[in-house]
Amino acid sequence: MDSLTQEKLDQATALLDEFGVDTWLTFVRESFDATDPLLPIIVGQHVTWQSAFVLARNGERIAIVGNLDADAIRSVSGWTQVIPYVRGISEPLRETLERLQPRSIAVNYSMTDVKADGLSHGMYLLLHEHLKSTPFPARLESAERLVAALRGRKTASEIARIRGAIEVTERIFAAVGKFLAVGKSEREVAEFMQSEARRLGVAPAWNEAGCPIVNTGPDSSIGHSIPSDLRIEPGHVVHIDFGVRSNGYCSDLQRCWYVPRPGESSPPPRVRAAFDATRAAILAAADKLRPGVEGWVVDEAARRELTSRGFPEYQHGTGHHVGRAVHDGGGILAPCWERYGQTPYIRVEANNVFTLELGVYANEDHGAIGLEEDVLVTPDGVQWLSQPQESLWLVH
Amino acid sequence: MDSLTQEKLDQATALLDEFGVDTWLTFVRESFDATDPLLPIIVGQHVTWQSAFVLARNGERIAIVGNLDADAIRSVSGWTQVIPYVRGISEPLRETLERLQPRSIAVNYSMTDVKADGLSHGMYLLLHEHLKSTPFPARLESAERLVAALRGRKTASEIARIRGAIEVTERIFAAVGKFLAVGKSEREVAEFMQSEARRLGVAPAWNEAGCPIVNTGPDSSIGHSIPSDLRIEPGHVVHIDFGVRSNGYCSDLQRCWYVPRPGESSPPPRVRAAFDATRAAILAAADKLRPGVEGWVVDEAARRELTSRGFPEYQHGTGHHVGRAVHDGGGILAPCWERYGQTPYIRVEANNVFTLELGVYANEDHGAIGLEEDVLVTPDGVQWLSQPQESLWLVH
Repeated sequence: MDSLTQEKLDQATALLDEFGVDTWLTFVRESFDATDPLLPIIVGQHVTWQSAFVLARNGERIAIVGNLDADAIRSVSGWTQVIPYVRGISEPLRETLERLQPRSIAVNYSMTDVKADGLSHGMYLLLHEHLKSTPFPARLESAERLVAALRGRKTASEIARIRGAIEVTERIFAAVGKFLAVGKSEREVAEFMQSEARRLGVAPAWNEAGCPIVNTGPDSSIGHSIPSDLRIEPGHVVHIDFGVRSNGYCSDLQRCWYVPRPGESSPPPRVRAAFDATRAAILAAADKLRPGVEGWVVDEAARRELTSRGFPEYQHGTGHHVGRAVHDGGGILAPCWERYGQTPYIRVEANNVFTLELGVYANEDHGAIGLEEDVLVTPDGVQWLSQPQESLWLVH
Repeated sequence: MDSLTQEKLDQATALLDEFGVDTWLTFVRESFDATDPLLPIIVGQHVTWQSAFVLARNGERIAIVGNLDADAIRSVSGWTQVIPYVRGISEPLRETLERLQPRSIAVNYSMTDVKADGLSHGMYLLLHEHLKSTPFPARLESAERLVAALRGRKTASEIARIRGAIEVTERIFAAVGKFLAVGKSEREVAEFMQSEARRLGVAPAWNEAGCPIVNTGPDSSIGHSIPSDLRIEPGHVVHIDFGVRSNGYCSDLQRCWYVPRPGESSPPPRVRAAFDATRAAILAAADKLRPGVEGWVVDEAARRELTSRGFPEYQHGTGHHVGRAVHDGGGILAPCWERYGQTPYIRVEANNVFTLELGVYANEDHGAIGLEEDVLVTPDGVQWLSQPQESLWLVH
């Protein structure tokens, strides 16, 4: 087992104590195709048959797995007991719980946090069936607080890995800044960045077809879209949203450029004003971001800064956790809209890493402005992990 | 949209009619990290926010997605209506169902079939919340029959892709047969096969660290394990379980070799007997495999053939579907053990593709024998998709 898995397992055990939960049960099967997002953090190995990973408040770590998975789980160590079964998991699972007698059993489901929602509905039903005629079904509860804290409170080595991912991303952004030119298509720009990423030994932070997102000019599709054959023209804003996964951890940044028209030496005033408003709104968010604040407060500060300058409101949240996943779950810096559920009310904590991201997407003549930075929450504010973009760059 | 997605969408609509189901609702979010196994088949694109893909019996295909996902979904076409939302999905989802008035709504959960179990428990609860004060929660039912048929009944182009994957796998097995030699480690053998796969442009069929599984000699760990530093020695059986993903479809094969000791020109009798029993048991399974049979019957024929020759019973099923996933869900050719749930009772259908796999794992002096073939179910039996291994190969 690598030292990071050990670090997170120790943190998980401490969280059980902090939240007063007796056991934390991760119940999975065929994890290669149906991954619980917690599994890579606490196990780092796949399983085929129904498997129960039980973390107990007393420090016991028990893995109950199919016989042909047992050696692989023993090989990652970290688990104080590996119990293999052949015919079915229900008996060893019941025996383990009867021995531990937990008053509470946290399992990975959550209405609002996808990273705490690795238990499928079928597996939830199966767990009830395995535990029928025991007192345990009534003791099941959502592990969402545990998952949010475990993923959200980054250890020093996690922060170092995120810094590493950001550094590579900034190198690729620097390279693409030189690559951009009139006549190149969104797709060509994306392929250049993907090949740089491969050369530097990092993976895309999200699905490769849409990583990076590249938008040139007013006709490009904003959102989680695939780079098109639209070509860079004078007068365009070029906007790129990109992140990488390096050593298992992600970055997520947006940068933008203006392509001067003949005779122009700087962006037109309205483009500059959109950039300045975007940057000011990100600074307003950073100013509010500190331990204890609820996410929606940070979002509101940025949203108000942008709209008070006469720009339209962006239709997404201002920031999300980044870490093992590019959308790392837990709380969010977002308005209290239905689609964010309860997550905007979760309080920010020290050692959280967030994106701060927004823009002026009204395309009009030039295209979309968008910026995204990554920040670490410190005891009294934020530390910029990315080197913030302070002015609109020009494509030469 | 590629023609295969179109083919599967048409098949899905026809299945609604066949099974008398009014709508099929796939409800997902953050699909990059929390994939419903159905999504790549019917959509082939990722979404970030809560998204509902509604297939109606009347042929309508409605996608309700977050605003920033809408263009990506429009780009795959196939969906007759794409409804974007900003604040929350509940209103457009309720409106759509109120217009369609389905008497039954199949959703992707299943206690026994992981490939039909893409709905997380949190999303299940959320769906109930979105539909509260409507009659629809009571009309939700498991889509497992639909998923099993959609994945299990391979179209001609799916069968062609599986054949392609098997062909590449057999080329890699032929190459590794020449590579095997006394003194090489399991890990070196695995790395050779992985590099061959990369050279031929195919991905591993399951997690790369354990694909292939390589076992040499009596001390190697059988199961879903990681190749070790154990080295090939005279007197060993070398056993390899390997599959690739080519054009989105998988193969899954096992092959084995004997390493002669000085003076030996063929395997010792007990090794040969184990191989012959394994092959005979696979033939016994193939003999029973045809449309209409329940999976456990096929398993029992193989199991009885092996044990009647005095070899110990293997502790897993005799075969699983192969397709888009290496364990493609639906029915299984396995004994009626708890861990297989109801799946051994599902009837085999024409155009299913199954593995037939088993072995004599008692290591003793030489190591494990294991064979695995891939077969297509035809109207009156099976067609071998792989070229069956008929005798134990020798390492020279």
